[in-house]
Formats: sequence, structure tokens, C-alpha cells
Amino acid sequence: MSRDVFDDAEYERRVERTKARLREEDLDAIVVADPANMNYLTGYDGWSFYVHQAVVVTPERDEPVWIGRGMDAGGARATTNLSEESILSYSDDHVHSPYDLHPMDFVAGVLEDLEVADGRIGLEMDAAYFTAKSYTRLQQNLPEAEFEDATLLVGWVRIKKSERELEYMREAARISENAMQAGLDAIEAGVPEYEAAAAIYDALINGTDEYGGDYPSIVPLLPSGDHTDTPHLTWTDRPFEDGDPVIIELSGCRHRYHSPLARTTFVGDPPAELEETADIVVEGIEAALDAVEPGVTCESVEEAWRETIAQYGLEKEDRIGYSMGLGYPPDWGEHTASIRPGDETVLEEDMTFHMIPGIWTADVGMEISETFHVTSSGAETLADFPRRLFTT
Amino acid sequence: MSRDVFDDAEYERRVERTKARLREEDLDAIVVADPANMNYLTGYDGWSFYVHQAVVVTPERDEPVWIGRGMDAGGARATTNLSEESILSYSDDHVHSPYDLHPMDFVAGVLEDLEVADGRIGLEMDAAYFTAKSYTRLQQNLPEAEFEDATLLVGWVRIKKSERELEYMREAARISENAMQAGLDAIEAGVPEYEAAAAIYDALINGTDEYGGDYPSIVPLLPSGDHTDTPHLTWTDRPFEDGDPVIIELSGCRHRYHSPLARTTFVGDPPAELEETADIVVEGIEAALDAVEPGVTCESVEEAWRETIAQYGLEKEDRIGYSMGLGYPPDWGEHTASIRPGDETVLEEDMTFHMIPGIWTADVGMEISETFHVTSSGAETLADFPRRLFTT
Repeated sequence: MSRDVFDDAEYERRVERTKARLREEDLDAIVVADPANMNYLTGYDGWSFYVHQAVVVTPERDEPVWIGRGMDAGGARATTNLSEESILSYSDDHVHSPYDLHPMDFVAGVLEDLEVADGRIGLEMDAAYFTAKSYTRLQQNLPEAEFEDATLLVGWVRIKKSERELEYMREAARISENAMQAGLDAIEAGVPEYEAAAAIYDALINGTDEYGGDYPSIVPLLPSGDHTDTPHLTWTDRPFEDGDPVIIELSGCRHRYHSPLARTTFVGDPPAELEETADIVVEGIEAALDAVEPGVTCESVEEAWRETIAQYGLEKEDRIGYSMGLGYPPDWGEHTASIRPGDETVLEEDMTFHMIPGIWTADVGMEISETFHVTSSGAETLADFPRRLFTT
Repeated sequence: MSRDVFDDAEYERRVERTKARLREEDLDAIVVADPANMNYLTGYDGWSFYVHQAVVVTPERDEPVWIGRGMDAGGARATTNLSEESILSYSDDHVHSPYDLHPMDFVAGVLEDLEVADGRIGLEMDAAYFTAKSYTRLQQNLPEAEFEDATLLVGWVRIKKSERELEYMREAARISENAMQAGLDAIEAGVPEYEAAAAIYDALINGTDEYGGDYPSIVPLLPSGDHTDTPHLTWTDRPFEDGDPVIIELSGCRHRYHSPLARTTFVGDPPAELEETADIVVEGIEAALDAVEPGVTCESVEEAWRETIAQYGLEKEDRIGYSMGLGYPPDWGEHTASIRPGDETVLEEDMTFHMIPGIWTADVGMEISETFHVTSSGAETLADFPRRLFTT
């Protein structure tokens, strides 16, 4: 059962740290709608985030309250250790309702019962699934409340990983290695892109000999040929052709924890220019990984990358990495610290990042990435996979 | 290339119908943030919806405008036929920004350039990914605008499917049949749930001999044993055991079009009560399908189900189906018409629905579903798969 993923003490620490942040911010409650944050605080794990749901934490109440659709209350019983009085659900006529009912009307009622209706309430204003309508309905129902943007409050609580979380991320890394190898093995001229995607999925879900894989928050991305000038394109029916670059970005997932990995391969003999670009990217990644240690800032890590590739005349405007770990679709990122200019977040032990400095030129793209854990002595990369351009 | 999924004329008809609705509602623009609606209007197809993006349609401008992250503009060029001046992108410092920049600041600038900053602007207030923050930033940037909730405007434009859309849904149904068979074949005592999930994924992505499958908007759901008392739970490492009921809900996907299918199986010899429940559910589904024809209402279809199962003392409070087709995570539903009491939507030819009357008791759950197309003569079910309880 998913409720055994972490022991009760770990959830209690998470909730206590969240309550401490609420007290610091002088908030009487937070309404957590991000499914990753809901899972983090309660263990709740179900594909039910296509309807509105939330976890409410107040500094006063011991347990968080889980609020969801009636038919999902059983899922809350199965995957959390919450007591029955902390599992509250709304009737089905609130779902995509033609009756002017909205799940947040029910959430507002819970906030009234928790006696915070006239308090300062934190909302995840920019979290996926916390819609504009969710916000306006809470405002209409609770005219006395003062709402504050608390989008990243739980995200910052999550940023340092426990030993058990790191264990799941290392397990996810084993799955990522298997899936990357399966993808590289499947790609050759004449094979349709979807067959390579199927081989990757097979490895992602079958996992290892010891354990299976969970669904990743982002599907394997597999742009090939002239689609490699842009990230985020998925597979098609097109067969790979001799002369195609192919980017594979994927992540194994274990109990919702990820360890993303990207590599680039080439169908046939790669042009010298692509090989050179790969060498520069690898040198830049290694310089950035070398710069990682507790006490340095995110922007200084980016600077190490930037200065290294600048020696070869390359530049890149985008961020090159972000804090990540636990996630649900559409993202495995935590949206807190990013490795980029101007981000002065100081690295601390047990933070985890995905460093993915993609290079996209007018003609071609290349991605090589590593997920790393900040240890007392530097960066521990979670996957052990050759860091280079591949060829079929 | 994905831009060949539909011809230009089909996109033009979709945009024209949307413009007609804008005129009816006296709207000067709509900001479309739902990825399925973005795809419907432009063809745009990328896993980039974890950052803010939008399509803007105005009654005045020929083409819609696509707005997204800089690195995704190439994806818009690859998957749409929009001209270069209709592809607008924001810089990377807007993404999970520590600089108080938000992508909707950029969208607001586009709305100004389109000369609708003081107009009536429709917003998809309750669409996944159109966050509360997106709304407040648009309000701040455009104090003269009058915002209206237009959440389902494009959804209602989408509700009747074209011949080409139906073709993709039938192709998705072929994939669903293959994947359901693969799942049923894989489930037996001692096999871990994830191995069955892997077998299903393999069939979902490998598709058929003629074409591959796209990623479904919802992962295969696979609750087993006492998890079947709730839907929406995904697979775990637990091996199936003799005496387990197992629900499989999945959908093949073709060019983002779905044809969901659910069946229930039993590891070993099912108890007589479960067999009887299955027979009642099948009788209820068949009565509901028989009630389908152009001119009848959604609620009358639900009534046929309800009255049939009531004869056996069964009842169910939830809706039993919903309009669906094109979708992105987290959902394949369109959120418009539902098959439930009080929904007076009149069925019209070429609407498509997923009818999924799950029965969840305190002990066990059962799901048998069909995706159907409303034809001039009744319901055409898209998948051809035995409609009964299975056993391993």
C-alpha cells in the first residue's frame, strides 16, 4: 500500500515544518492544491487531479484535512494515514457542474468549519490546477478572508530531501539508466519514433529486477531530425532516418520521485560540428557540477557553465536547471530554485536539481543532462550513464 | 509532421465557429489556455503546458495568435500552419521567475497590440493551467478590460466531431482493444501490478501494425484488490493475488484523440455476487446505449441506466459519462455535456461520449465502459470488445 511509502514520523516532520512556515508568515491556513504538495503532506496518490481537490493545513490542527471528490475518498483512505474526520469529500454534482456548484464552495465550507473564514489564508495562486475560478469562488464564499499568495511555501519546505526521498530518487535513477539504454538500443534508421517510445516506456514501467516504475510526470520526449531545434515535442509515426539527431529526455519514477536524464544520439555518422558541440556541452556540464557545493549560489553554478562554453563562442539564454524531486503531471520541477543568472538561492546539503543545459540552434538541438544531489563535498549525480553524444 | 494531422480548411472552420461564438457573446477576444483547445484551434502539440501559454482569437484577426515560451516557438512552427507573425514568445526569465515576471504580463502586451485592452475578453477561468495568478496578472496589466468567464466556449465548439476526428477516434479504439487484451493477458496471480501496466503501455504506444499510439491524457488506471473500491488509483509493486478483482481503465490515443475503455477482471473464480453485478451493469449500459439518438437529452440516457439497475436494487449517485475526444493531461473529458440527472443537453449527430458507470461498494468496485459516437440511428460504440466480467 502506498501509505507505507514513508513512515508517519516523516509526514509529521513535513507538516510541522509547514506549520512553522505558516506561523512565520502569520497565516491561519494554507489551501494546497498542487498534487505533489498534497502527496508530500499526506501521502495521497491518485490520478484525480483532473477535478479540484486540496489539502488544508492550519497551525492549530494536528492533521491536515484532505478534500476531494466523493469517489476519491477511498483513495485517500488507501494511500494516507489520515483519520476519518480528516477526509472530507464533495458530492458528484460539483464535478464539471451544470448547476453552478464548484468544489471550492465545499472547500470554503471546510475553511469555515476550521474557523479561519475571517483569517489570513495562503493560496497556491500559480499552481497548476488551482484555477482562476477556484480563486474567485473562494473569494465569493469567504468575503471576510484575507488571501495571500503562498504558491511556493510547501515547495521550499520540500527542497531538502530526506534519506528516504534520496533513496527513491536513486531507485528512479536506476530506472532512468535502463530506459535510456532501451531508447538508444531501439533507435535506428527505418524504425518509427513510436517504437522507440514504446521501448522506453517498457523500461520505465518494468523498472528493475527488484521494483517497478511509476508513471513519470512528463512523458519521454523524443524530438528527432528537424524537430530537435525545439524541446518538448513528443514522438510521431515518422521513421528515423540516416542523418537524424535524436534527443531523448526521460525520467524514471519511483513513488512519484524522479531522476530525469537526457542524452542525444545520431542516426549514422554525426557531423564533426555536432561532435564538437557535444564535447563543449559536456565540458560545460562538468564545470558546473564541479562548482556545486553547499554555500555557493545557483547563479554561480550557471556562471561556471556559461564561462566554459563562452570560450568556444557558445551562449544560451535559458536557465540550465531547476530543483526537482516529487512530482505529478504536468511537471517534475518544484518551481523554487533555478540554476540561472540572478537566482541567489544558496545551495544546501540534500537539495536535488536537474541540470539540463539544452543547446538549440537554428538547425539542430542537443541535450545532455544530469540529476544531482548536493552533498557535503559537492554534486553526486544520481544516474551513472556515459556523458557524451551517442550514435546508432 | 503534426501539421498534417488536419488540413487547413478544418482549422479554418474551427476558428470561424469560435469567432462566431465570440460575436454572439459580444467578446472582443478569448485567451485560450487549455492545451486541448489550443491544439484544436491551431494544431499546436507539445508537452510545454507546464509553463503558461495561450492562443488568442479575436473576431477581427484572420489567424489565432500562439503565445508561449521562447524555446517552444520552434514547436509551434513545426506543428501549426500559423504564419511567423502569429507566433509570439516570451523570454525565459518569465518561467518560474524570481524576478516578478509572469508570462501573462507578456500575454497582456499581446492583447494591447491586438487593440482589445479595453474590450471584453473571455478567459477560461476554470481550465487546468489557467491559474489564479494568471488571472490576477491579466487584471493588473489590463485595468480597462472587462473579463468574462468563457471556460467552455471552445469546448462547446468541439462537441460535434468531423469525419477526420472520428477516424482518429476509431484508430484510438483499435489501440484500446489491443491494450485491453494485453492487460487481461498479463494479469495473473503472482504478477506485480506494474508488469501488467507495462504490457498495457507497450500496446498503447506500439499501437497497431499500421500506426503508433500517442500518450493518453490519463495513464492506465489499474486498481486491484481492496483498491477497487475507489477509481483513479494507479499500479503499485503489489503482486496480484487469487481472489483479486482488478479494474482496467485505459485509452488508446491517436493525434491526441482518445477512445477510452474500461473492463473488470478477476484473479481466479469470481464470487457469484460479482458476476451478478457485472450482468446488471452490462444490462444497464445496454439500456443506456439503446436510449441514445439525436434529439434525446443526456439525462434521459442516464435515466435508462438508472431505471434498469434500480430493478435489481442498485443505485449510483455519480454521473455515468461525459463528452470527450481530444485531450491533454490531466483529462480527456471536454467538461461540457455529462450523462447525469439535470443535464438537459440534447444529443446531436457526431457527438462522442465515454459512458463509464462505475459501481463502487464498500467492498469492491466494477467498471465496464464504452466510448460511443451519436449517429443518425443511435449509438455506435467505437471499440469492439466483449462487454462482460473477465477472469484470469
